[in-house]
Amino acid sequence: MLDVKDKTGADLTLDDMLAARARIAPYIHRTPVLTSSFLNDLTGAELFFKCENFQKAGAFKVRGASNAVFGLSDEVAKRGVATHSSGNHALSLSYAAGRRGIPCHVVMPHTAPQAKKDAVRGYGGIITECEPSTTSREAVFAEVQARTGAEFVHPYNDPRVIAGQATCSAELIEQVEGLDAVIAPIGGGGMVSGTCLTLSNLAPGMKIYAAEPEQADDAARSFRAGHIIADDAPVTVADGLKVPLKENTWHFVSHFVTDVLTASEEEIIDAMKLTWARMKIVIEASCAVPLATILKNPEIFAGKRVGVIITGGNVDLDSLPWIK
Amino acid sequence: MLDVKDKTGADLTLDDMLAARARIAPYIHRTPVLTSSFLNDLTGAELFFKCENFQKAGAFKVRGASNAVFGLSDEVAKRGVATHSSGNHALSLSYAAGRRGIPCHVVMPHTAPQAKKDAVRGYGGIITECEPSTTSREAVFAEVQARTGAEFVHPYNDPRVIAGQATCSAELIEQVEGLDAVIAPIGGGGMVSGTCLTLSNLAPGMKIYAAEPEQADDAARSFRAGHIIADDAPVTVADGLKVPLKENTWHFVSHFVTDVLTASEEEIIDAMKLTWARMKIVIEASCAVPLATILKNPEIFAGKRVGVIITGGNVDLDSLPWIK
Repeated sequence: MLDVKDKTGADLTLDDMLAARARIAPYIHRTPVLTSSFLNDLTGAELFFKCENFQKAGAFKVRGASNAVFGLSDEVAKRGVATHSSGNHALSLSYAAGRRGIPCHVVMPHTAPQAKKDAVRGYGGIITECEPSTTSREAVFAEVQARTGAEFVHPYNDPRVIAGQATCSAELIEQVEGLDAVIAPIGGGGMVSGTCLTLSNLAPGMKIYAAEPEQADDAARSFRAGHIIADDAPVTVADGLKVPLKENTWHFVSHFVTDVLTASEEEIIDAMKLTWARMKIVIEASCAVPLATILKNPEIFAGKRVGVIITGGNVDLDSLPWIK
Repeated sequence: MLDVKDKTGADLTLDDMLAARARIAPYIHRTPVLTSSFLNDLTGAELFFKCENFQKAGAFKVRGASNAVFGLSDEVAKRGVATHSSGNHALSLSYAAGRRGIPCHVVMPHTAPQAKKDAVRGYGGIITECEPSTTSREAVFAEVQARTGAEFVHPYNDPRVIAGQATCSAELIEQVEGLDAVIAPIGGGGMVSGTCLTLSNLAPGMKIYAAEPEQADDAARSFRAGHIIADDAPVTVADGLKVPLKENTWHFVSHFVTDVLTASEEEIIDAMKLTWARMKIVIEASCAVPLATILKNPEIFAGKRVGVIITGGNVDLDSLPWIK
């Protein structure tokens, strides 16, 4: 059997998702699906919110991180894992490594908010600080890897990670019958790629939409152009969605995504606040982008049964985008 | 058969709860129970959060309001219902009346926040404004009742309301086996009384705790004194808990409650923010009082399986108590 690590996105099969599902089951939640009659009335659609904000470590990223960590041989695992994300992937990888009892190294700029450093340490991650530049980050990361031999787990371009994220939509289509479409936010494309892997195999007629901030619309532009276009330092409230597609996620986006829809900053913040107010759940700005695009494109979604992936709930409660 | 309306709290039986449960089932949610391994570790207890913040109209009050509205004869119902609460009871009564297609009159001071007026109107309530004084409120309310013949539904002292609130803990003990205790916030005592009605019949060994702000501790002082003591205009962030006990709720509190525990304003706000941050749910300050008292009294709760009633999620998102 080929190790998923040596695959590309194009080589991933349903078996990789099924193996991931069995592997990570002890370490993650089967998250609930919530509905809101208010939002159904408002959109004219039937919306089914897959609440990964209730997931371990507060985000879907724990699926991919756990699949990577628990798929390692003991020999490799004992040297630990490493990443240079400072967001939900760092928390999730730290959590998964902690469950396996191996070290997790996270390279972060010393300028990162104290709250992010505390959160990573709270899940047991070992932080090595770098200067806030790509050059420094890469140099420090190379040093950490050379010193520890830790296995690099990329936040989204890693096929092990994509196979893990694919378990989310497998649960969703078991929890809700007869969906017409699924929509998820897109940054680097890990969740969307996993969704494509699962649905193209298990529900080939189902439409797959990716939702993106207008101000970080590299996936939308890539989708129209037919090749990867990366944004140069985009600025958006949806801070989980600033990163560009890479070859393994581009494979899925270019082959299986129905469309990439975008929303403005104001529309994203309004949809975020509306979700908090009406559904009583704490979601990140990134997760509000799908609802924002549904509200904006009623002609696509009205009358349809739509799965909406709420990707995470790790929010700085001291700084909310609608409170100035 | 005696009408529950003509009963006092002391006359309520399990049959009244069962009748309420059947009556309101089409109009309410069976709300989910959530857990948090973080909060379990922190408290040393196993906590089961009954999420009435996900309830219709955003609070448990829709249970009692629906029981009152749908228990009316057609003759009485057609004249509508009325109340002078301006909080969750007003929203809930408006919602239930709307479902039955009858008017709901709400008397509110003209000084009430626009957001509260909008919310009541959003659920179809008809607002009649009064001056912000008890004298004016009573005079205007009497005028509305005389003019419309609407049935008064008290927010908590009404036995129909208590029987409705009692359905919440009936669900909880079906959803979670082997609870040692249930804890709920206490203001006027409607939810606590309903909990007592159900548990004293169905789970007589289970302890029942009421949680209250130190700065509105009339129930705690009443409990110790053995008679109702009302606070004079208490000031607390837990604005759902300012009202005093009345004879029908006092009956249950004095006979069936194990203890009334209190928490400071700071402890309540910390527990509220902690719940938002860790459980990713939007809860009112009032609902954080139970967790605050659990954190404060580990000797009571450690090692126990505890049901925690999260009473509602109607929060002004523009004004959060931890953001100055």
